Amino acid sequence: MNKKDKYSASILVIGDEILSGRTQDTNSNQIAKKMTEIGINISDIRVVPDTKEIIIESINELRKKTDYLFTTGGIGPTHDDITAESIASAFGVEININQEAFSILKAYYDEIGSPFNEARQRMAMIPVGATLIDNPISKAPGFKLENVFVFAGIPKIMTSMLENSIKYLDKGKIVLSQSIKVNAVEGDIAKALRLLDSEESELKIGSYPFFNSDVDFGVNVVIKSVDEERLIKSVDKFKEFLNQNSINFDN
Amino acid sequence: MNKKDKYSASILVIGDEILSGRTQDTNSNQIAKKMTEIGINISDIRVVPDTKEIIIESINELRKKTDYLFTTGGIGPTHDDITAESIASAFGVEININQEAFSILKAYYDEIGSPFNEARQRMAMIPVGATLIDNPISKAPGFKLENVFVFAGIPKIMTSMLENSIKYLDKGKIVLSQSIKVNAVEGDIAKALRLLDSEESELKIGSYPFFNSDVDFGVNVVIKSVDEERLIKSVDKFKEFLNQNSINFDN
Repeated sequence: MNKKDKYSASILVIGDEILSGRTQDTNSNQIAKKMTEIGINISDIRVVPDTKEIIIESINELRKKTDYLFTTGGIGPTHDDITAESIASAFGVEININQEAFSILKAYYDEIGSPFNEARQRMAMIPVGATLIDNPISKAPGFKLENVFVFAGIPKIMTSMLENSIKYLDKGKIVLSQSIKVNAVEGDIAKALRLLDSEESELKIGSYPFFNSDVDFGVNVVIKSVDEERLIKSVDKFKEFLNQNSINFDN
Repeated sequence: MNKKDKYSASILVIGDEILSGRTQDTNSNQIAKKMTEIGINISDIRVVPDTKEIIIESINELRKKTDYLFTTGGIGPTHDDITAESIASAFGVEININQEAFSILKAYYDEIGSPFNEARQRMAMIPVGATLIDNPISKAPGFKLENVFVFAGIPKIMTSMLENSIKYLDKGKIVLSQSIKVNAVEGDIAKALRLLDSEESELKIGSYPFFNSDVDFGVNVVIKSVDEERLIKSVDKFKEFLNQNSINFDN
């Protein structure tokens, strides 16, 4: 891949437990935050069930659409863990016992004195051509195949796999952002935001109302740009508007 | 729609702030839990940016794919609130001032003594043919057009719009579920789960490892069925396996 200014990524969350509401997904938020930090733009997050055809279809769509694809979930030892075989099918490659993964897992189970049984050996089944991603917690590795990164679903393990994957990613230009907490409702500032937005095409302006109670409500306005000078200029202009209209705000 | 045993739904979360990681989406989890309670199966959750073409494309794909589609976000008064116009475009209908919505909003702003300005009047722009969904908190209504339900992004408001929409939904057969917290790791129970899974096609078995610390880890096994007798039989069989293998568990 040639070095570019902007990189995109998508996230595929695999798991019936998210779709049933049993589990609140927090992994995609962790990945999104990290990508924003390093200038990679997440354009798509999807949650799909533990159904092989759907997983394969989603992988093939997203890995072509964005520079990187991160998947979470479905790489454990049980019958509903079908991510690795789905990745292999999506890429049209074989899947078999990866000797490196097998050694890591064998050493771990020998050490803790637990049988390295058939189910556990299944976690060494990795698509051919993949690079392993270290899992310092429960050892069963994630992996990377071309631009697709396959992480565990358990948040702690996912987070360390994500950290261990940053070295493989090309970083984009960091989007600078400034947040202004405004003591008003959106209707009071909508016109000013619309004006700012139309003046500067390089700017991205978000307006996020919050409503905690009848006395604690307002709007977080987030102004973003890759250009620091333009960002400062626009933030100043917005604050001037707030002052002129006697609207309180915090930085 | 004829009465069926099973109903499906999808969720479209609209908002740059979710994709950047700034905000953790909790709305889709709320919707998913509620749907599971009333026997509607969520098959797809997507998060997309505040970009009109992408929103329209996603709406048209998902509203055809599932019985119901719920969208969250993008119905406020600011420039980045483009959900209502995207819905109108997706359905090929006009969007204009909805008199009912206009009256509700006017009465509200008159009451609180705040100007019902142009930005706020924008929240009365509703696709033609839509039915309003009441918002008891900040009054700007959501709406329903055919099988698509359009909710606000603020969790409190979303939750009340969701409650106010249940009456429009056909309910499916409730999926019964039993959860067993097992003091073991997945590798110890994978074989038993695989066996159970292959014996009973009516059953859905999920295995959700958790890992809080070196001493607090295990697996939540969730067995689901629409048939109570089969569910009980399978849970008993699984517990028998746990007892035979001296594995502790809680219900």
